[in-house]
Amino acid sequence: MTFEVLDWIYILNLAGVLVFAISGVLTAIDNDFDVVGASVIGFITALGGGTLRDLLIGETPVGWMLDTNYLWTVMAAVALSYLFKTRIIKLRKGMFLFDSMGLGLFAILGVQKTIAVGLDPVIAILMGMVSAVFGGVLRDVLSNIVPLIFRKEIYATACLIGGLVFLILQTFSKALYINMGVAMFVVFIIRYLAVKKKWVMKF
Amino acid sequence: MTFEVLDWIYILNLAGVLVFAISGVLTAIDNDFDVVGASVIGFITALGGGTLRDLLIGETPVGWMLDTNYLWTVMAAVALSYLFKTRIIKLRKGMFLFDSMGLGLFAILGVQKTIAVGLDPVIAILMGMVSAVFGGVLRDVLSNIVPLIFRKEIYATACLIGGLVFLILQTFSKALYINMGVAMFVVFIIRYLAVKKKWVMKF
Amino acid sequence: MTFEVLDWIYILNLAGVLVFAISGVLTAIDNDFDVVGASVIGFITALGGGTLRDLLIGETPVGWMLDTNYLWTVMAAVALSYLFKTRIIKLRKGMFLFDSMGLGLFAILGVQKTIAVGLDPVIAILMGMVSAVFGGVLRDVLSNIVPLIFRKEIYATACLIGGLVFLILQTFSKALYINMGVAMFVVFIIRYLAVKKKWVMKF
Repeated sequence: MTFEVLDWIYILNLAGVLVFAISGVLTAIDNDFDVVGASVIGFITALGGGTLRDLLIGETPVGWMLDTNYLWTVMAAVALSYLFKTRIIKLRKGMFLFDSMGLGLFAILGVQKTIAVGLDPVIAILMGMVSAVFGGVLRDVLSNIVPLIFRKEIYATACLIGGLVFLILQTFSKALYINMGVAMFVVFIIRYLAVKKKWVMKF
Repeated sequence: MTFEVLDWIYILNLAGVLVFAISGVLTAIDNDFDVVGASVIGFITALGGGTLRDLLIGETPVGWMLDTNYLWTVMAAVALSYLFKTRIIKLRKGMFLFDSMGLGLFAILGVQKTIAVGLDPVIAILMGMVSAVFGGVLRDVLSNIVPLIFRKEIYATACLIGGLVFLILQTFSKALYINMGVAMFVVFIIRYLAVKKKWVMKF
Repeated sequence: MTFEVLDWIYILNLAGVLVFAISGVLTAIDNDFDVVGASVIGFITALGGGTLRDLLIGETPVGWMLDTNYLWTVMAAVALSYLFKTRIIKLRKGMFLFDSMGLGLFAILGVQKTIAVGLDPVIAILMGMVSAVFGGVLRDVLSNIVPLIFRKEIYATACLIGGLVFLILQTFSKALYINMGVAMFVVFIIRYLAVKKKWVMKF
């Protein structure tokens, strides 16, 4: 059972990397980057947040260096983006769904990894947010634009709320994977509704 | 005695974080960031320099992750900035005083922490400067402007001189806290006079 | 013999740092940075890539903190840039030669250092590229321009090809330094020809 759940988390994680990387590559193509530049941007969009988290909590070499599947997934994302560019752009609605799922997954996995090294739960919530959104921040910095999440999107907020929900659930129940699943869904649904309903931060 | 001095250093350190964070949040509000973006910018302005230093010298998890008071201080800075925005802007002269004190404090504490892990004094001077000014550099990069300190301000220079003074004093006297205090004052007074007298780097 | 080769690598490494730092300082002067800003940019251009690699693979304190010769070399580069500015600009053709050599050196040394800590060869190729090009990326980000290598230059690609050549040679021959030299030459010659012949990435 445990093994199966971990397998699912791993597969979902790679799926999240794939979707984040594709979104990074498409942004880079829009900015007239060449294929190497687009690959770097795809890589950083997908793995930059987790990399920063691992550096800050002192888990080095950082995660993706110990498992090349992450790198191959990014390269697959680059290939898919170039081969099926027009189709993928049409699919962006579907991608937004996966993107929101990836956000929830990365945020809650980030919270858990931080707690696992013994850091304070409040710091863990922060690191969950860093894991999920700083890839996008680095993508924007490297593309020389003001990071989007600082201005418009209920994105970081969704991660912080989801992280809080996860920690509250953990104090009431030992069912780790169910707690994780619920918290991921909270992040997903806030993000999803925020975009659908065009919620905006009031100040 | 020692205990008291360390207490004072700790309190001053948090005060420096508060002032740096407020200045970051106000800059972010000026740039139309939302409250989450402003909080992130406040955080990075106050703690980004020390974070970079800790990563470079290999002290991970970085300092603020082991003591949540730093995080709460940043959050207090965010609350104060939003609640008393107009008053704080009027108080900016007073804030500039605290900001210069924070600069001295962060620089010399950075020098000492680097020496404490056994690195070369010259590297320590550099790390003192990094601790004190790179939060502002990261703030500017994330706001998509050329970092101010690269163009106008006698800011990094004050930190380097202060660090040098600290190391020279240490070779003549064992009075660590007095040496630190004098060196902090050197950074403070150079920065303070530089702004008051409108000193500019000649080339 | 081995000792002599290591000496040569060390000297070439410092020469590479010198040339990269000079190119950084000249760029910063072009952007109206003051001398402190130009020094920081020179430093980051020369040592930023290796620093990022060391952080990612968990080798802290990072390399240049344990050997102040790197810092002195950067300071020499700053002094030379200001003293002989007009002459150096005339010499840029010659500098481009050294710059391409530095690229090959940094890339292959980066590959080898990553393998030495036990990471996967594919990750090592990536880290070689990071070592050689991310100093320039950080320089561009701090100067608030879109990193050049993302758009125009066959620069990262040369590093990746050179890294691959090195790994292939290593499987056939035990002559480490010869393999390194050949791979460095591959990076150098691709970069050199790419500029001479005005090769451009096709997509």
